[in-house]
Amino acid sequence: MRKGEATRQRIIAQAAPIFNQRGFDGCSMQDLMQATGLEKGGLYRHFPNKEHLAAEAFRFALAQTVKLRTGHLDDIPNAVDKLKTFVQHFVETPSALPGGCPLMNTAIDSDDGNPTLRDLARKGVHDWRTRLARIVEAGIKAGEIHKSTDSRRIANTLIATLEGALMISRLDNSRQALRDAQATLDSILTGIATSRR
Amino acid sequence: MRKGEATRQRIIAQAAPIFNQRGFDGCSMQDLMQATGLEKGGLYRHFPNKEHLAAEAFRFALAQTVKLRTGHLDDIPNAVDKLKTFVQHFVETPSALPGGCPLMNTAIDSDDGNPTLRDLARKGVHDWRTRLARIVEAGIKAGEIHKSTDSRRIANTLIATLEGALMISRLDNSRQALRDAQATLDSILTGIATSRR
Repeated sequence: MRKGEATRQRIIAQAAPIFNQRGFDGCSMQDLMQATGLEKGGLYRHFPNKEHLAAEAFRFALAQTVKLRTGHLDDIPNAVDKLKTFVQHFVETPSALPGGCPLMNTAIDSDDGNPTLRDLARKGVHDWRTRLARIVEAGIKAGEIHKSTDSRRIANTLIATLEGALMISRLDNSRQALRDAQATLDSILTGIATSRR
Repeated sequence: MRKGEATRQRIIAQAAPIFNQRGFDGCSMQDLMQATGLEKGGLYRHFPNKEHLAAEAFRFALAQTVKLRTGHLDDIPNAVDKLKTFVQHFVETPSALPGGCPLMNTAIDSDDGNPTLRDLARKGVHDWRTRLARIVEAGIKAGEIHKSTDSRRIANTLIATLEGALMISRLDNSRQALRDAQATLDSILTGIATSRR
């Protein structure tokens, strides 16, 4: 990696938690200078503007989050076990970076402006839903999940319930809502399994 | 109502959609002056600072939202029907003011700062959960809902799934995720009912 590219990557990694915690408008140039130890000119040498840096920081945060949330699932053979492990992991593992889920933060933060960030968040949810729906479809094909199961509905329900519960848990400063979500989702997943698990 | 108080209420009502759409940091003094047609001095005559106006605007937005979401439930006799109607209403009715759910917006917006807004959002979720849990408990008492039902878990699941689905739906620009949430929650509510509904 060339030195310029290494510095660019370091800036992105250092800016990501700041944007994730404070949002686009809440993150000042001063905050970014403090987090990276660079002057304004140093930052502008690598990124044409704040929008550009925010987009790169979100891509970085999302990649870390996806890796943390679904990176461990490939080794689990049964589709229902895979989905239950995904839920358990979401409930028990802290967010990949400070400030909670970058997807939810950016979805809320960008919903009345900032179309680049919004498109990236939209793609993030789309890819996540596709990933989960494919696990359901593979489970149906393998005879592990009932044929009548709507894969998109299961995927949307998993994402919605976990993200909503994370929002409540962070507000309550308690994991209770996440544990309640896990109990509900486990029971739904047991319900779509062809064998008792 | 005295004229000063009427002006104060008008400012709150006009500022609420702006804060709901842009967040605390994203809402400038210029935005507030434009929305209310007042100069800075006129605003400061009624509110000591932006934090104070934002808190009043959130209280207003939350009251409108609670009224819209649960104001119509008292006339429905059966607890399960009441909860299903609540879900249907959430899924089919647009938010009380532009910018989506003020509770979710403020929960995300305030999670790394602004303790006053955060406390108000926390109380908002607490009151909402209590309201829904009481419906479940009344249903258990009336023999409409199975005794083994965990009222807090049902309440947390309803709020989490609907709020998460609203986030996805706004991002997708489609009500599909909300409809998927409704199908899932309806099935959960049918499952806790003592009679087939």
